[in-house]
Amino acid sequence: MILPLEGVVVLEFAQFMAGPSAGLKLADLGARVIKIERPGAGESGRKIAIKNLFIGDDSLVFHTINRNKESIEANLKDEKDLAMIRKLLLRADILLHNFRPGVMEKIGLDYDSVKRLCPTMIYGEITGYGKEGPWTKKPGQDLLVQSVSGLAYLSGNRADAPTPMGIAVSDMLTGAHLVQGILAAMIQRGRTGQGAKVSVSLLESTLDFQFEGLTTYLNSGMQAPIRAEQGNANAFLGAPYGIYQTSDGYMAVAMVPLARLTEAMEVPLPAEYREPTTWFDQRDAIMRLLASYFIKNTSDHWVEIFDRQDLWCMPVLDYKELLEQEAYRVLRMDQEVVTKRGEVLKTTRCPIRIDGERLFSSKSAPEVGEDSAVIRREFDL
Amino acid sequence: MILPLEGVVVLEFAQFMAGPSAGLKLADLGARVIKIERPGAGESGRKIAIKNLFIGDDSLVFHTINRNKESIEANLKDEKDLAMIRKLLLRADILLHNFRPGVMEKIGLDYDSVKRLCPTMIYGEITGYGKEGPWTKKPGQDLLVQSVSGLAYLSGNRADAPTPMGIAVSDMLTGAHLVQGILAAMIQRGRTGQGAKVSVSLLESTLDFQFEGLTTYLNSGMQAPIRAEQGNANAFLGAPYGIYQTSDGYMAVAMVPLARLTEAMEVPLPAEYREPTTWFDQRDAIMRLLASYFIKNTSDHWVEIFDRQDLWCMPVLDYKELLEQEAYRVLRMDQEVVTKRGEVLKTTRCPIRIDGERLFSSKSAPEVGEDSAVIRREFDL
Repeated sequence: MILPLEGVVVLEFAQFMAGPSAGLKLADLGARVIKIERPGAGESGRKIAIKNLFIGDDSLVFHTINRNKESIEANLKDEKDLAMIRKLLLRADILLHNFRPGVMEKIGLDYDSVKRLCPTMIYGEITGYGKEGPWTKKPGQDLLVQSVSGLAYLSGNRADAPTPMGIAVSDMLTGAHLVQGILAAMIQRGRTGQGAKVSVSLLESTLDFQFEGLTTYLNSGMQAPIRAEQGNANAFLGAPYGIYQTSDGYMAVAMVPLARLTEAMEVPLPAEYREPTTWFDQRDAIMRLLASYFIKNTSDHWVEIFDRQDLWCMPVLDYKELLEQEAYRVLRMDQEVVTKRGEVLKTTRCPIRIDGERLFSSKSAPEVGEDSAVIRREFDL
Repeated sequence: MILPLEGVVVLEFAQFMAGPSAGLKLADLGARVIKIERPGAGESGRKIAIKNLFIGDDSLVFHTINRNKESIEANLKDEKDLAMIRKLLLRADILLHNFRPGVMEKIGLDYDSVKRLCPTMIYGEITGYGKEGPWTKKPGQDLLVQSVSGLAYLSGNRADAPTPMGIAVSDMLTGAHLVQGILAAMIQRGRTGQGAKVSVSLLESTLDFQFEGLTTYLNSGMQAPIRAEQGNANAFLGAPYGIYQTSDGYMAVAMVPLARLTEAMEVPLPAEYREPTTWFDQRDAIMRLLASYFIKNTSDHWVEIFDRQDLWCMPVLDYKELLEQEAYRVLRMDQEVVTKRGEVLKTTRCPIRIDGERLFSSKSAPEVGEDSAVIRREFDL
């Protein structure tokens, strides 16, 4: 199968998560992604330890997000290496980086300089907080952006401390937005022959993610979102939406008309909750009432009853339970990659299918400079 | 400014969040997005009440995610309307839908049928759990997918019940992946003249989102992730990563070498925590120790000390505090849209900037069939 981005060359000047996650999607969609790394140490993400797990010299998480890429060493403070990079630029379609504002300017790889050299370049840049204002020099890091963006007051229950999302969600969304902008610019370039600059920031992407919450806040007299007392799953939605403990676990209930739910559960619905407008205002009382019934029976019991009537619910599963599901197995979501040294690593695959085909990629993350010699020869650098 | 996707026509057969969020990004990047809606009621998302807030007949959240689109009415169970849709297909570049498996097949708008009619069509489809296996008929809803995917065991603290992310994160990521696949396929079509089918599912996108967690699980003897006892921000990262209460609020601390942090805080670092390998294993003890100091002073106090040494931290802000920041104001992240009836609505803008320009869109979400007459005339339907 010929992948959609076959033949597209990407230079990735990126570290940690947001930038490399963008490079990964481009690679999985068929682009050739070359990481430009400092000699020896390589990008900083190689050292981010997740549970102290390393494969060779590099952290496990580095491996998962840099599979399917190549690596060339270059010292961006050295004029000779910079000259080589400028030569390499001429062979690339896309450049992406996530340095703090000012870094690429200092070494002459800012957009205006690159554009003079290659007017067709699609130049993608990620910052933490944009390129103006008092936070431009602050560290553009996922948890910090979650924390200043209001996001930490949306998960967890009412009395909980601010609860960040336990995954680098700002990084992931920002990387996804960069890919969207870059690919759109590639389409435009196909018509005009002109390159473009595509800029995203962790903060803007994390605010976009909260369009529901922010729009609600801006249009309802600036009332702070209030999380449900127990089982909160969305500060803005009424009962029964949330998580309920059962006699042997937990289950999730989505948007379900309350009368149909209580009828299925054989729970008398108090008259004061019959009107849908009460489901938000009386959310906690209603959820407490439902919780007192859910706890009396197993998750399987409730799911079976609800499924019969197409009432939207699912059990809450952990990784062990998930991986035992036939529904997980048929996805074939995991794959093995093999490193140059022969280590075998299990990881996930690209979530996008093209013409019904899953996109696997058996190539592992490169060692620092693993492809330097080949790339230099190929592009006569 | 000519937007990158100017001239691209998208037909959106979608409801609720994941599909419309994909359509929104395409619209914001310049595509003309036409919602195909059932006469009268329109798509189901129009009725999803967020805090009982409505603009005209439609929920506030519908407005935020369908701005910048057009709407044409069509009864997909009526052969005459279907004939009109088939005629409209010939003028479109992209079709996207998020019906459950089987629905588009039944009305002859599945990929194979559409491809016969328009070989250049990029056909994007979103399902909840893919198109095979025991969950295909289950409701493809964000909270439910979060719950079965293991995600709910990553946020919140150790003793907490499963804690879903308080935003439709599965919907948002899936929409983003669909846009990535669609735009990549458009680029390929530019070379080959051939259309393609792009398929994503909420579950696969939510598993991809957990590549760190799943890869760690798969490569470390299937050990379940363990959330920090207090202040958890990532089940896989060691101390000091997390949230700390101060004397007047909360603050977030990201990856910071422990010795530098404790020195800045003037906290004696016990000898047993000097080795970085202890920061994960002894995470809770270390975080408890730090918490006992953070509480003694204000967030401002700590942030000032840490900033001086470029130690990665930020205060935790709510919407009120965020919107007061100069750093928020300079982004100009919010915009006003005006509905056909003259209601003014404040919402967020597209997070992607092209050539340094923010992408605003003053067009509000359409009423059901608002553009039916114009579109029928224009395309001679």
